[in-house]
Amino acid sequence: MNESNWSSLSAGLPQWLEHARSETSLGKVASYIPELSKADPSSLGLHIRTVDGRSLSAGTCGDRFTMQSISKVFTLILALMDNGEDVVFSKVGMEPTGDSFNSMLKLELVQPGIPFNPLINAGAIVISSLIGGSSNEEKVTRIQSFIGKLAGREPLQIDEQTYRSECQTGHLNRSMAYFLTDNGVLKGKVEDVLEVYFKHCSLLVDCADLARMALVLSLDGLDPDTGERLIPRRFVQIAKTFMVTCGMYNGSGEFAIDVGLPAKSGVSGGIMALLPGQAGIGIIGPSLNRHGNSVAGVHLLKHLSKEFDWSLF
Amino acid sequence: MNESNWSSLSAGLPQWLEHARSETSLGKVASYIPELSKADPSSLGLHIRTVDGRSLSAGTCGDRFTMQSISKVFTLILALMDNGEDVVFSKVGMEPTGDSFNSMLKLELVQPGIPFNPLINAGAIVISSLIGGSSNEEKVTRIQSFIGKLAGREPLQIDEQTYRSECQTGHLNRSMAYFLTDNGVLKGKVEDVLEVYFKHCSLLVDCADLARMALVLSLDGLDPDTGERLIPRRFVQIAKTFMVTCGMYNGSGEFAIDVGLPAKSGVSGGIMALLPGQAGIGIIGPSLNRHGNSVAGVHLLKHLSKEFDWSLF
Amino acid sequence: MNESNWSSLSAGLPQWLEHARSETSLGKVASYIPELSKADPSSLGLHIRTVDGRSLSAGTCGDRFTMQSISKVFTLILALMDNGEDVVFSKVGMEPTGDSFNSMLKLELVQPGIPFNPLINAGAIVISSLIGGSSNEEKVTRIQSFIGKLAGREPLQIDEQTYRSECQTGHLNRSMAYFLTDNGVLKGKVEDVLEVYFKHCSLLVDCADLARMALVLSLDGLDPDTGERLIPRRFVQIAKTFMVTCGMYNGSGEFAIDVGLPAKSGVSGGIMALLPGQAGIGIIGPSLNRHGNSVAGVHLLKHLSKEFDWSLF
Amino acid sequence: MNESNWSSLSAGLPQWLEHARSETSLGKVASYIPELSKADPSSLGLHIRTVDGRSLSAGTCGDRFTMQSISKVFTLILALMDNGEDVVFSKVGMEPTGDSFNSMLKLELVQPGIPFNPLINAGAIVISSLIGGSSNEEKVTRIQSFIGKLAGREPLQIDEQTYRSECQTGHLNRSMAYFLTDNGVLKGKVEDVLEVYFKHCSLLVDCADLARMALVLSLDGLDPDTGERLIPRRFVQIAKTFMVTCGMYNGSGEFAIDVGLPAKSGVSGGIMALLPGQAGIGIIGPSLNRHGNSVAGVHLLKHLSKEFDWSLF
Repeated sequence: MNESNWSSLSAGLPQWLEHARSETSLGKVASYIPELSKADPSSLGLHIRTVDGRSLSAGTCGDRFTMQSISKVFTLILALMDNGEDVVFSKVGMEPTGDSFNSMLKLELVQPGIPFNPLINAGAIVISSLIGGSSNEEKVTRIQSFIGKLAGREPLQIDEQTYRSECQTGHLNRSMAYFLTDNGVLKGKVEDVLEVYFKHCSLLVDCADLARMALVLSLDGLDPDTGERLIPRRFVQIAKTFMVTCGMYNGSGEFAIDVGLPAKSGVSGGIMALLPGQAGIGIIGPSLNRHGNSVAGVHLLKHLSKEFDWSLF
Repeated sequence: MNESNWSSLSAGLPQWLEHARSETSLGKVASYIPELSKADPSSLGLHIRTVDGRSLSAGTCGDRFTMQSISKVFTLILALMDNGEDVVFSKVGMEPTGDSFNSMLKLELVQPGIPFNPLINAGAIVISSLIGGSSNEEKVTRIQSFIGKLAGREPLQIDEQTYRSECQTGHLNRSMAYFLTDNGVLKGKVEDVLEVYFKHCSLLVDCADLARMALVLSLDGLDPDTGERLIPRRFVQIAKTFMVTCGMYNGSGEFAIDVGLPAKSGVSGGIMALLPGQAGIGIIGPSLNRHGNSVAGVHLLKHLSKEFDWSLF
Repeated sequence: MNESNWSSLSAGLPQWLEHARSETSLGKVASYIPELSKADPSSLGLHIRTVDGRSLSAGTCGDRFTMQSISKVFTLILALMDNGEDVVFSKVGMEPTGDSFNSMLKLELVQPGIPFNPLINAGAIVISSLIGGSSNEEKVTRIQSFIGKLAGREPLQIDEQTYRSECQTGHLNRSMAYFLTDNGVLKGKVEDVLEVYFKHCSLLVDCADLARMALVLSLDGLDPDTGERLIPRRFVQIAKTFMVTCGMYNGSGEFAIDVGLPAKSGVSGGIMALLPGQAGIGIIGPSLNRHGNSVAGVHLLKHLSKEFDWSLF
Repeated sequence: MNESNWSSLSAGLPQWLEHARSETSLGKVASYIPELSKADPSSLGLHIRTVDGRSLSAGTCGDRFTMQSISKVFTLILALMDNGEDVVFSKVGMEPTGDSFNSMLKLELVQPGIPFNPLINAGAIVISSLIGGSSNEEKVTRIQSFIGKLAGREPLQIDEQTYRSECQTGHLNRSMAYFLTDNGVLKGKVEDVLEVYFKHCSLLVDCADLARMALVLSLDGLDPDTGERLIPRRFVQIAKTFMVTCGMYNGSGEFAIDVGLPAKSGVSGGIMALLPGQAGIGIIGPSLNRHGNSVAGVHLLKHLSKEFDWSLF
């Protein structure tokens, strides 16, 4: 990002964010577990960090929230690092589905009954089962360390209350897991796999954490501070591609048209987005649109993408 | 059944049964658990018992087999006796589905996500949860006694090996149960409900048992030996209606056209059928057609229905 | 129907009908074409005619209305008489679907893509293509004569305005017809088949007509006045069976439980029902429930079936 | 593309193409109309043209073939130019579907029943209805001129035999069109819309034509020879985004992972792909994989993308 754009961004962001905040009234906060429903619906925050070391915050971005589906990008990468492409893609596909993230239709309708991609719930559950480790504890610890390294502070903490709530109410995920077990796609004890899955969804981050993780991806896998390679470039490419085609639930196509950046959202209201080679962005805005994406976060990204011509396309 | 028909039936049955047996090569034995796959595919037996005390056997009918889905007729009746129509039909519908017995499509596609009827797996699992009893053990014991009373020998035994196999491999049923829990239709611990469900599917009967149970239904709920009312007439009517519209999986429509009797099949190859006011029939023939019904059993019933004009329609 | 029941029926019918009429406010009149939407929503009429020559009317039953889906029972029978069972059932199945009467899902999802049964729209369109005749005009005339003979007055008239409206707005039926053409199930020009289909749906009848048609079915195909065989008994059996399993759209299962008689409804609000061996019933009540069945008509039949124990089951 | 890459490409292409040709035996030529089925399955050709005026051919690329679905990219652009974004996206969505290009499931299952995106058949038919023109002839002529201008030779010819075949056998497209008419999405006479649709699918091009069209897109809408703006930049952006998310039927996700370029395929075996700011590519290889994409064409693009690091991601 050149100096001029950075200046414009710094100057304009506060008011653009306030403008986007007015969109929050059009959505609503996720309510399926108490921990999510407590979030302030009118809250909105953004942090951006560039490859050349600049960073900028606007709105409310200091608070921590759970990663939810954003974590799926990184468990996918870790599963690829642990197993290679061939193993991973024998168990999950590469296609967007057009269905809701928790739909089971295609598992029944489309043979051979493997999840269409690793970012819908069914796919992410299969990915959780592929994380290396001799015990559940080790698997979770490895995820915490890996994502923590990308965030630049490790290990990330698990929000125990959220984890326990997800565990108690996550019957649809359980239903999917047993369906996948019946299809022969998922091996091992369902409750073990779900423990890993629910725990990585419950990892606590803030906007700066998301921005730094995204920055690593925008640098094709290099640590922005040390230059160390944290992820093989090919796996970053795979992750970024999925973020474009499937990262924003079944609003991904519209987001690609309107924003055009690799991004991943979570039902906590977080969005992680990136400008390849330039910057990483973290957003929190708990009020969600009908697809489950932060309504104000999407609005703000759309505005910024238009203003600075950020679309990859 | 008049004297002349009974004579014809007695005389003709052995050869009609042998003729039907040749159909067994067109189907195959259920293979999802070892206990079912061990059955002799060419086996076929029929027992018929009339309201006036006559009975007749042909083929191999002394061996016991597990009731499987046939038990769903009786858990439905017991759930109705325990809860009344209103409670039961707030949790399961009354419509045939056209889908496979273990399909989950309609649970996702059709609001409010209650099973379409009590004879598909999802519906029968909900019914299992409605059986009265303060403990799982009591619920199972009540089912054993109730069905045993209809069979005229109580309590029926559970085939422990089949039960354990179903329990270990029944992931699709587990998936349904969790889906139903998520929909708010199923209450209580899933594993408890499934224990009841798998156990009543594992009850051991022979053809004479099935014929006597069917005879009770053909007498609108009266014990054929004592005249005691075992089931309220209305609940027999409900059960018989479901047997006509949904009793033979997604081959029910064809069976109604070709045979026209209330009947219920199980994947062990059993069929329970009845001639209202006249007789009860039990059949075992483990080789199944593509719908999961005894291929030779259906063929034999079709022949008998044509020969003696048994169709209700 | 014995003397005592007939007396009770004669005495009670007017007030039972008035009671049922209050249900009309819970439904609404079909609105997709102007001709149907003009019907009086609070109207309700019933005509019953017995095998021993008695008949009874209550409410508003003199007016004529279009047969709509009720005609499908008779085109099925005529197609069976023209082609035999094998040809007909190579092109339509025998199973209830659980889906709406105009759903196309199963045509796409379930191989080989033939309609599940002859009473859903897709199936009835295929049946229309099987009616014998060297021209479209001859086919329609044959249907008019055939159904007219059953009604005891021939030929029945086509409501030209309704026909033209259906023709102009029937795009979903057209969509199905082209889908079936693509599947290879439907032969010939789609518009020709649809002309036959829309015309037989537009045949004008009154309640007494429906009652007499039903009476022929209740007599297994004999003319109630002359004793002449109008329909082979087997084809009546097939028709009655479909009326039980699929006659009331996707409310058929509930109707079988609550009423238990072979019946067929149309979106004009007509219902044709029959008591095998005893009587035929014609009903008109344009206010429809969510399944497309006359809401008050179903309510009245439910009451009568309970009162006089009419269920076949 | 720098000099070194261009040299490598020029040197390597012939043998890479021959290697990819061996994949043709794994697919098969589209057979639904005689005109397509006559294509040589082992044929493969590629033409690439760069922004700085270089071009390169390999394999068999002189022959003309019909554009088929590739034309949908340009009718979308023309519809956008004729109507603006708001009108177009009130009638088609922006989401990948995961279903086959001719699936109708989502039209029935997902309200409000508009096609998920403009590149599946249902969506492209709606787009055809939005092309400006006071007569069908004018609409077709405008499409011919517009695409011809992009190809650098206008107007493109219609293959009359292919058009007539599509017209005669396109019952599934007709089925969709009537469904969309019923949903209120499609206005006007179905046969008129289909004439436009089938005709633009029947436009004749060769690989060089496709490469030049793609080059215009890679230049964000400018004519590579004159610099004239042929398409507003925003509409090129929209088109490129759809090419990434939905351009290769339900193999789009995998193509994005493996190749990572905006591309659109047709069942004639054509593929149009582009390197933004650098080059346009045209491919013909009639042997198709299970998704309907040129099996060897995809293989070759995958190899080139890996070799020269072409992925956008």
